[in-house]
Amino acid sequence: MARFLQKKEGTIGQVPGDLVFIGEQKVAEATIRVIDYDQEQLSDQHLQDIKEGLIYKDRSTVTWININGLHDTKLIRELGTGFGLHALVLEDIVNTGQRPRMEEYDEYLFFALKMMRYDEETGKVRSEQLSMVLGKTFLLTFQEQPGDVFEPVRERIRKQRGRIRKVGIDYLAYALLDTIVDNYLFIIERLGERIEEIEDKILDNPSQEVLASINNYKREMNYLRKTIRPAREFILHLSRLDSDLLQEKTLPFLKDLLDLSNQAVDVIDSYRDMLSDHLNIYNTQISNRLNEIMKVLTIFSAIFIPLTFIAGIYGTNFENVPELHFRYSYFIMWGVMIVVAGFMLRFFRRKCWL
Amino acid sequence: MARFLQKKEGTIGQVPGDLVFIGEQKVAEATIRVIDYDQEQLSDQHLQDIKEGLIYKDRSTVTWININGLHDTKLIRELGTGFGLHALVLEDIVNTGQRPRMEEYDEYLFFALKMMRYDEETGKVRSEQLSMVLGKTFLLTFQEQPGDVFEPVRERIRKQRGRIRKVGIDYLAYALLDTIVDNYLFIIERLGERIEEIEDKILDNPSQEVLASINNYKREMNYLRKTIRPAREFILHLSRLDSDLLQEKTLPFLKDLLDLSNQAVDVIDSYRDMLSDHLNIYNTQISNRLNEIMKVLTIFSAIFIPLTFIAGIYGTNFENVPELHFRYSYFIMWGVMIVVAGFMLRFFRRKCWL
Amino acid sequence: MARFLQKKEGTIGQVPGDLVFIGEQKVAEATIRVIDYDQEQLSDQHLQDIKEGLIYKDRSTVTWININGLHDTKLIRELGTGFGLHALVLEDIVNTGQRPRMEEYDEYLFFALKMMRYDEETGKVRSEQLSMVLGKTFLLTFQEQPGDVFEPVRERIRKQRGRIRKVGIDYLAYALLDTIVDNYLFIIERLGERIEEIEDKILDNPSQEVLASINNYKREMNYLRKTIRPAREFILHLSRLDSDLLQEKTLPFLKDLLDLSNQAVDVIDSYRDMLSDHLNIYNTQISNRLNEIMKVLTIFSAIFIPLTFIAGIYGTNFENVPELHFRYSYFIMWGVMIVVAGFMLRFFRRKCWL
Amino acid sequence: MARFLQKKEGTIGQVPGDLVFIGEQKVAEATIRVIDYDQEQLSDQHLQDIKEGLIYKDRSTVTWININGLHDTKLIRELGTGFGLHALVLEDIVNTGQRPRMEEYDEYLFFALKMMRYDEETGKVRSEQLSMVLGKTFLLTFQEQPGDVFEPVRERIRKQRGRIRKVGIDYLAYALLDTIVDNYLFIIERLGERIEEIEDKILDNPSQEVLASINNYKREMNYLRKTIRPAREFILHLSRLDSDLLQEKTLPFLKDLLDLSNQAVDVIDSYRDMLSDHLNIYNTQISNRLNEIMKVLTIFSAIFIPLTFIAGIYGTNFENVPELHFRYSYFIMWGVMIVVAGFMLRFFRRKCWL
Amino acid sequence: MARFLQKKEGTIGQVPGDLVFIGEQKVAEATIRVIDYDQEQLSDQHLQDIKEGLIYKDRSTVTWININGLHDTKLIRELGTGFGLHALVLEDIVNTGQRPRMEEYDEYLFFALKMMRYDEETGKVRSEQLSMVLGKTFLLTFQEQPGDVFEPVRERIRKQRGRIRKVGIDYLAYALLDTIVDNYLFIIERLGERIEEIEDKILDNPSQEVLASINNYKREMNYLRKTIRPAREFILHLSRLDSDLLQEKTLPFLKDLLDLSNQAVDVIDSYRDMLSDHLNIYNTQISNRLNEIMKVLTIFSAIFIPLTFIAGIYGTNFENVPELHFRYSYFIMWGVMIVVAGFMLRFFRRKCWL
Repeated sequence: MARFLQKKEGTIGQVPGDLVFIGEQKVAEATIRVIDYDQEQLSDQHLQDIKEGLIYKDRSTVTWININGLHDTKLIRELGTGFGLHALVLEDIVNTGQRPRMEEYDEYLFFALKMMRYDEETGKVRSEQLSMVLGKTFLLTFQEQPGDVFEPVRERIRKQRGRIRKVGIDYLAYALLDTIVDNYLFIIERLGERIEEIEDKILDNPSQEVLASINNYKREMNYLRKTIRPAREFILHLSRLDSDLLQEKTLPFLKDLLDLSNQAVDVIDSYRDMLSDHLNIYNTQISNRLNEIMKVLTIFSAIFIPLTFIAGIYGTNFENVPELHFRYSYFIMWGVMIVVAGFMLRFFRRKCWL
Repeated sequence: MARFLQKKEGTIGQVPGDLVFIGEQKVAEATIRVIDYDQEQLSDQHLQDIKEGLIYKDRSTVTWININGLHDTKLIRELGTGFGLHALVLEDIVNTGQRPRMEEYDEYLFFALKMMRYDEETGKVRSEQLSMVLGKTFLLTFQEQPGDVFEPVRERIRKQRGRIRKVGIDYLAYALLDTIVDNYLFIIERLGERIEEIEDKILDNPSQEVLASINNYKREMNYLRKTIRPAREFILHLSRLDSDLLQEKTLPFLKDLLDLSNQAVDVIDSYRDMLSDHLNIYNTQISNRLNEIMKVLTIFSAIFIPLTFIAGIYGTNFENVPELHFRYSYFIMWGVMIVVAGFMLRFFRRKCWL
Repeated sequence: MARFLQKKEGTIGQVPGDLVFIGEQKVAEATIRVIDYDQEQLSDQHLQDIKEGLIYKDRSTVTWININGLHDTKLIRELGTGFGLHALVLEDIVNTGQRPRMEEYDEYLFFALKMMRYDEETGKVRSEQLSMVLGKTFLLTFQEQPGDVFEPVRERIRKQRGRIRKVGIDYLAYALLDTIVDNYLFIIERLGERIEEIEDKILDNPSQEVLASINNYKREMNYLRKTIRPAREFILHLSRLDSDLLQEKTLPFLKDLLDLSNQAVDVIDSYRDMLSDHLNIYNTQISNRLNEIMKVLTIFSAIFIPLTFIAGIYGTNFENVPELHFRYSYFIMWGVMIVVAGFMLRFFRRKCWL
Repeated sequence: MARFLQKKEGTIGQVPGDLVFIGEQKVAEATIRVIDYDQEQLSDQHLQDIKEGLIYKDRSTVTWININGLHDTKLIRELGTGFGLHALVLEDIVNTGQRPRMEEYDEYLFFALKMMRYDEETGKVRSEQLSMVLGKTFLLTFQEQPGDVFEPVRERIRKQRGRIRKVGIDYLAYALLDTIVDNYLFIIERLGERIEEIEDKILDNPSQEVLASINNYKREMNYLRKTIRPAREFILHLSRLDSDLLQEKTLPFLKDLLDLSNQAVDVIDSYRDMLSDHLNIYNTQISNRLNEIMKVLTIFSAIFIPLTFIAGIYGTNFENVPELHFRYSYFIMWGVMIVVAGFMLRFFRRKCWL
Repeated sequence: MARFLQKKEGTIGQVPGDLVFIGEQKVAEATIRVIDYDQEQLSDQHLQDIKEGLIYKDRSTVTWININGLHDTKLIRELGTGFGLHALVLEDIVNTGQRPRMEEYDEYLFFALKMMRYDEETGKVRSEQLSMVLGKTFLLTFQEQPGDVFEPVRERIRKQRGRIRKVGIDYLAYALLDTIVDNYLFIIERLGERIEEIEDKILDNPSQEVLASINNYKREMNYLRKTIRPAREFILHLSRLDSDLLQEKTLPFLKDLLDLSNQAVDVIDSYRDMLSDHLNIYNTQISNRLNEIMKVLTIFSAIFIPLTFIAGIYGTNFENVPELHFRYSYFIMWGVMIVVAGFMLRFFRRKCWL
């Protein structure tokens, strides 16, 4: 399966708005968790049946319903009908190959984006689709599997830290988006550290492993870029949105979030440039190495080939080779050889090859 | 014939609006198929004569007339006159070298775009021009040959699946466009899988075949990009169009379609970047290989050339070579040779060539 | 003379609006041809004196005056004065180094663009400046030399083919622009065919000729791009122009023209990308070849150098070399050599060099 | 720690607006300095307690409060509360990994940017975060450590040079920004000198050191670009801002500042291009060197290998080698060898290898 | 001193608007020249004291005051005060490191741009700052040294050629700008000719000199681009400016000027592309050469190494080598050698190496 694009086969011409789960099923059974709170009270429960969740729709409290597991299209549909979601929104929720984006509907906003995880062992970034529906008093989130980056936000809700219990549902949505983008930056930074470390290795020892890791980071940076850039776009759009669903006082936070995502995109581009530079330097080092090897070979060959030739001459078995009979010819031969070798060495020194 | 641009020779200065078929005739005889439906009824027939089709023009039912085969300019002209199409539209329909685009007329919208097919054997993407004319109650589609990606849509019409029978002609046009863009994504994904697979091969075994396939995918991605980018542009335009021909409730679907085409263009760009990286890494691997070969050659030469020289010295036939007469000189020579070779090996080990 | 920029020496600080011919004189004497028509009648004549042409200025018929040869600045000035052209327009007409563009004046529109010709022999694209002045009832065209791509348009006028005789002067201007842009596409297509053909040659036989032709096509594509992009820009501007000189019903034709020029620019960019890819692949092929050559050299050297060394050892003339006197030493030597060679061959096979 | 992105670990999901110092603590204790002046009087003092500083908030004099050391979040919070700053602003002040930017609040403007220092020894550019809050009558600046580029501005305030004592707080903010951007240009210029010097070295002696310094300057230029581009963006925004906090007569100065930052970005891009060219030329030089080495090797090998072969032939011990017994064969052999060598030399001269 | 950025050291934190000359003093003493004219009369004089020049400020005639030499800040200040210039304008005039730009003030427009000179010997483009202040009836120009490109304009004023004496001060400013941009094009053309000539040399003989000149032209083109692009920007701005200082009838001339500068930027980009292509082709040629050298080496080695080995075998002194005693073994050896060599040659021919 191509990682940069989810498999679409079999879905061509599918009825738009039809609920067909596209992706890899990562959890056996979908689970539903509802956190409902206002300034005074808080309830946090796991539901067996989504019908119990529908009562929260028109309550004035802040309600966050989180679904883990997207393959249960029946559940998604029930929820969608209950909360009045458009068929296209439901289709997008169960299609994990969505491009990060926002859709504006009258009664709610829909976001699709990616949560990311850096797998230290394979050196690959894994992503999981997260869909959010932000209504007047409810926030629905849809994940592919349990385990997310939202625990600190839940902690803040439970412990009443910060303003989160005092302000509305839009702030909760912001807090989740903020956590996700923070996590992007964290992943970029972990990759970035490794990328910056490579630099010294390239000049010292341009091994095959260094090449493989440059290649790996290039691919991962491309992947991050492809995922984060559209997210940045919709956050920009969100921060300028004039909607009843967003309170005035949440705007500074959205601008802060926009800045964070701008930074993410900037840094990714910096690292991409840096990796291209690394590859260029690596190539140059390989050429330098080749030159060094060739110098050694050339020096050896060029010095000994003429000497061996001279020895060869006097190894011939001609009857009449006058030099063979002179008393000191052997020593003269050695002398000539030393002179020739010395001349060669000087020539190479002049060429800066030694 | 250049694949990236259709042959224009012989058409320079041609009367604009003149019907001259440009392209390769892919079907012996043009065929006409009319699907006409509303919520209650459905008729699906092949016409012998286009005149029978003209009666549908002002009917309130949804009428989809599909023509296979564009070389029959007489038929196209008759149809054009019957449905009141501009001469330029007709010219564009029969010129298969059109750039994907939309033209807005008072009574109808005209789209030209490409249907694509990936030929697994040659590894090439083939494209066929599809023109669409969307009127108030009719949709005309023009293909070069039978065989299209619309079968699932026909199925949905026949089986009354989804909303297609309940809503208007603009939704049908959307459904066809959606099918085509879905197909683009499907083709990109198939190419993408192969492109992602190449990566490991490059590091393991940078063979000539790998190079040829990098080159092939680069060309195909360029071709896809050239075809899909203008399609994306006109879908953007369409999704913002304020026209009587589009109903309010179709807009979310068009936005969805826009997003799909944005994703297509994004992914193509990602794959193009990836292929450039692949080629760079391939080149670097080739250089690495050369270095390895040179190391072997250098080590062999540098060790044996001096040894051979020493042997050569004592192969000379000088009368007076004192060493020849010492009892153990032969063994001393071996000793010297082993020392020299050992010294060379240490030198190469220090250079990290071993 | 630099082909990408016309020589400006001697013209620095020249009075703006002064008529100084800049370029190469390509024709001995300037000629004047007037085609004047309406729906009923047509006259087509060569004038000796431009004064005869001035009578057409205020006639309601469509008048097309074509000048071949720009060095006759006196003639140009007379014409300019007669038709009320701005001094800057006249200066631009006689300066063949103009960048393609449009200028809007109250009474007329001025276009400067290039007609191109592909010289099969030298493989170079030659261009000639074409200036057009579109007034209410007249169209003036200025060429550097006889021989243009307008013959089909004249044919259409003569034979009353299409709408050309029934509509106004703006349609004639459109028809000429259309012919020129069609010709651009034709030239691009001819280059494109050759560029697409190169691809196979690179992988099969990356010869010096292939390199020279990649280089040649790169230069020509740069040249085409530099010439056609500004033309596209002014056609875009023209298609959006709100001017009395353009009739409402000509607009669809201008949009069609715009699309054609968009296509030209798109395809040029595709071919430029393709040529860059070609050069990269070529380089990689050269490296592959070098590797292959080095493998052969390395294998020969590495096999025979040790063998020759062994033979050298037993060619020494030491008095005491015990092996020389064993009965089968010669055959043992052969055996050892075969074993060594076999070992080397296995080593190279394991390295995938054989 | 990745230099291009500050470490974010442990802060994911942190309460937005919470004061957590992110960065490296560079100073033991935070210090507070207040400069308060109008046209007549001036006071410059170090405060022990930030509470003393709060009295300046509503004074009509110009008050500049500078904090060195950001780890003392208690102090920052007190100051923030006293001057009515938004929680997000305080968070940004203590997070040294901020992207340069401006935030507009009703009562004040907030700027975050970087002060830079070029470390001659390591060849690296170091940056320190500077935050500014510009209110109606006060300017707060926050630095990571003592030592800044503002001394000349303080001098101008003390000595009443220029207009600084006569105009408002916005001019002071401008003066500080101007000093910072001037410093950017100074650092770019110092790097630029070195970059321009490299050029000659590349053609003369493309050593490993040259490569390392090209790589170093590339990285530093990337770093400068990443830092200065967002600063330029917010200065552009500032110069177009319609705010009560900026007086009309300060605008020309802001435009001047914008131009300075445009210049900085332009020059960085020029140097980046230059470094890429340098690397290309370096690579080409390495290839040229390799060619030269190979020529020497080839010439030696190609001349002596055939000669050694000839000598080898007559070193064989066959009983019947007729040439061995001719009187002048030894001299004829020499003659043949000289002829062969001469032929080889002529061949190489014709190839331009000598 | 870095050529791409003027030295800023010592000026950090300088009072904005303070007059400090930045640059290299190129002339001993500043000189003042006043040309004052209307349609009837003309005066052209050199002033000793700038005070004499101030009387022209409010005269209705066209007054052009030119200053050569910028180090005399006292003179500049006096002039500035007399003509009511903003302190920042004066600072910009004496800072020769200005980026080309325009500033709009109520009473005048300020332009900073560069005059260029191509030094044939060093192959470098030299630039000199030119500042212009365009008021209602006066034009002030500031140059670093005597010698400019304005002589033809002065000639036109003296000889009353063209419209220059009949129209206002804005036309004079246009005429000077036009002369400067014309000069840019002239310099680009001279460089361009040389760049186009390089092409053939690369394919014929890719010498070190060719590489050095590619490098040189790349640097100069970068320099030109950095200088001309901002000039183009402000000319664009000027041509759209709605200011009392510009008459309606000057606008066509400004548009013409804009087009000239667009052309300059276009052509620079074309030449930059061309130089990059040249460098690529050069590199490929170097690789081709290496391949050719390697082929020769490989062929010689591969043919003679086995032959020498065979000769070596029969040079051994084993007592029992049966072949040595056969009558024709020597000749058989020759036969075997010829066969081996022939086989090798066929192998190389099949590889296309011969």
